[in-house]
Amino acid sequence: MAQKPSIPKGTRDFSPVEMARRNYIFDTIREAFRLFGYKQIETPAMENLSSLMGKYGEEGDKLLFKILNSGDFLKDVAPAELEERNPARLTCRICEKGLRYDLTVPFARFVVQHRNDLQLPFKRFQIQPVWRADRPQKGRYREFYQCDADVVGSDSLNNEIELLSLIDLVMDRLGIRTTIKINNRKVLAGIAQVIGAEDKIVDITVAIDKIDKIGLESVNAELRDKGLSEEAVSALEPLLTLSGTNDEKLARLATLLAASPEGMKGLDELREVLDGIAALDPKAEVELDVSLARGLNYYTGTIIEVKARDVEIGSITGGGRYDNLTGVFGMPGLSGVGISFGADRIYDVLNQLDLYPAEISAAVKVLFINFGEKEAASARRVIAALRRAGISAQLYPDAAKMKKQMNYANAEGVPYVALIGEEELASGTVTLKDMATGTQTRLTTAQLVETLKA
Amino acid sequence: MAQKPSIPKGTRDFSPVEMARRNYIFDTIREAFRLFGYKQIETPAMENLSSLMGKYGEEGDKLLFKILNSGDFLKDVAPAELEERNPARLTCRICEKGLRYDLTVPFARFVVQHRNDLQLPFKRFQIQPVWRADRPQKGRYREFYQCDADVVGSDSLNNEIELLSLIDLVMDRLGIRTTIKINNRKVLAGIAQVIGAEDKIVDITVAIDKIDKIGLESVNAELRDKGLSEEAVSALEPLLTLSGTNDEKLARLATLLAASPEGMKGLDELREVLDGIAALDPKAEVELDVSLARGLNYYTGTIIEVKARDVEIGSITGGGRYDNLTGVFGMPGLSGVGISFGADRIYDVLNQLDLYPAEISAAVKVLFINFGEKEAASARRVIAALRRAGISAQLYPDAAKMKKQMNYANAEGVPYVALIGEEELASGTVTLKDMATGTQTRLTTAQLVETLKA
Repeated sequence: MAQKPSIPKGTRDFSPVEMARRNYIFDTIREAFRLFGYKQIETPAMENLSSLMGKYGEEGDKLLFKILNSGDFLKDVAPAELEERNPARLTCRICEKGLRYDLTVPFARFVVQHRNDLQLPFKRFQIQPVWRADRPQKGRYREFYQCDADVVGSDSLNNEIELLSLIDLVMDRLGIRTTIKINNRKVLAGIAQVIGAEDKIVDITVAIDKIDKIGLESVNAELRDKGLSEEAVSALEPLLTLSGTNDEKLARLATLLAASPEGMKGLDELREVLDGIAALDPKAEVELDVSLARGLNYYTGTIIEVKARDVEIGSITGGGRYDNLTGVFGMPGLSGVGISFGADRIYDVLNQLDLYPAEISAAVKVLFINFGEKEAASARRVIAALRRAGISAQLYPDAAKMKKQMNYANAEGVPYVALIGEEELASGTVTLKDMATGTQTRLTTAQLVETLKA
Repeated sequence: MAQKPSIPKGTRDFSPVEMARRNYIFDTIREAFRLFGYKQIETPAMENLSSLMGKYGEEGDKLLFKILNSGDFLKDVAPAELEERNPARLTCRICEKGLRYDLTVPFARFVVQHRNDLQLPFKRFQIQPVWRADRPQKGRYREFYQCDADVVGSDSLNNEIELLSLIDLVMDRLGIRTTIKINNRKVLAGIAQVIGAEDKIVDITVAIDKIDKIGLESVNAELRDKGLSEEAVSALEPLLTLSGTNDEKLARLATLLAASPEGMKGLDELREVLDGIAALDPKAEVELDVSLARGLNYYTGTIIEVKARDVEIGSITGGGRYDNLTGVFGMPGLSGVGISFGADRIYDVLNQLDLYPAEISAAVKVLFINFGEKEAASARRVIAALRRAGISAQLYPDAAKMKKQMNYANAEGVPYVALIGEEELASGTVTLKDMATGTQTRLTTAQLVETLKA
């Protein structure tokens, strides 16, 4: 057992410093969710595979982590089934449970299972890890956190405006300058309609979603590949190269999409959402972007994506409206809209821009040097008083050499060191050393509490 | 798919109200950990099975949830191995990963893996779920949280005193009246020695650990069963029926264990720890209990167990000192001491005694009634001001009938409802209704912020 232990690839340990930073992000998001009236739920890490399979496409089924049944898992498997060695089929026979792949399907399952206890509209938030057997690569992990907020049971566009306002508040508090891009699935449908390629809406949106990455020429080539006529490609171009303010884009689109009632409906929705968020003076730039598609088969109305303006990185938050969240679980017609904060990407952005507040630290405020049994007993009483006052403090556990204890204090980044030696013991005082300035002060316990609280 | 979806047995969904209560518990514990200088880490849900297997005994190996390898998991399995149908052997061939079973083994693995980056003594805390394929029963789940604090790299009994003080602070803040029982493995060894049954220490401790449940007679019967002589059983009895104060027990034990140097060493340790915590005036009752054994094969010094005084329930927190945490990972000789708060049992205790503070709620402070588009736009601006001031608020998303919106407010338990109708719109005010008293007040936005902040 002398081999150095390791963890599964694509997973991570988080050190105290990393945890302090991650907690700062999660606490900021959680506090914003609460301010906005989203209510927290948690669901089990393991779901029945019957709840998960078929919800993420064929590829998704493969990326689910499956849990081997306990006990004699081959009990009911016939010899012929074993000999066949078909991994997919055998998996269903020896595994009943899987790890959750996202927070959306468990939320849908939760809503249907607890429908009689829920008050609609239901605003929920959920911050939990998810697991995907993806090929690990830079910035992509097999275990990562999602932070989701959704409203179900309300068609009102107020919900969209609220979600944009929520994103704005979170990003502002984290200090990230962002562009929030928005689009509407109905506008995408309208575009397909007016260029005479209604049946090609999926191909069109998949292609134009890449315009930022591969450019207009390549998008056009891909569209021709997919069987779009030259006329359709030409008709699409002015739609993809819209510029100007959101109002200018809306006006231009109103002309171009006039022949499509669905497209015009999408424009009305976009206008209401854009006006609503503009009236709240957001810090973020909010931009209408008709090339935004994000999981088109899922979203049915508003589509939202958030980019950090000062870092080259994929979207750090995304979401939209869906009209049939719970249909797969036998409860049709429940509309919802939601967003998901990408905590790991936000973490990368904050790290790159070094946006953490100075007070974020894993260290205690004050470390008491241990001079031996009698001094330690006295220190413990003073430390108890500090903790009662909400000040983090600890005694160096062993009466080690002074140098060793001071080295520990330095390595930990402790802002203050307290000393109770013979003199202090006699006078009932504490000597406090400010590690930044080196200043030493002799204080009573009450004065110490006051000083460290400040 | 019309079948109502469900979750795997032994797992739970947590509703917003349950989450508010659970967060209160976790936040209290986390804040205490921080005050005491324990630093948070997180480890992955999945560990390599090689890290987990053999660490929890044969029974434990069976209770591990194993993750099926991705892709063609039978690729390297020979036909003969398949035909053999040996579940344990086949599991090792088709599963490389398992879900963590506790937080102790992952912590040991973490310490060894990151030994070069860690500053010793290392005080860590960790709050994460663990998974066990136990038979589900009342109060026992297949997914549950553990809240662990440990110090490694220090032999000092200061650490024990600190942990007792930590338990006392947490239970005091939660309002749970507790008895903290403590013992020392060396005392147990000494007892076995002086009754001439050194080789039977495991049987003895397993038996006497049950004395509270089955009584002295049954314990004696079990000891005879295990081959203890009548003399040994008689010699043990006065040790098990010790009464009086901790000092009286210590004095009596000092006589009874005088012939065992190891037992006397254990008594010295117990005395130092008991004196240390007594000097800090704990709210909890601290009681020396020589029948306390808890996982004897694991602990090597102090043993700690916490009972709630006002509820019939198993121990709500436990821990102790171990001398070889990381030996199984090839890093021998690292001593540590730690405790684990049983969050689910603490939750049961708080529920039974209804000890939650009144302000624990999943609801927003104020719900704005939606009277239509113009009024909603105005409400959104006022709500934004409230949130900037840290007050949770939300707009009812749809312009539904007043009655429906008020019913929602009542069902949610919202303490205030705000109304912006035609009159308020004209005068730039808000009508605030206190749901408890029914009082209505007309306020400016600034006054509203002041009122709700109070």
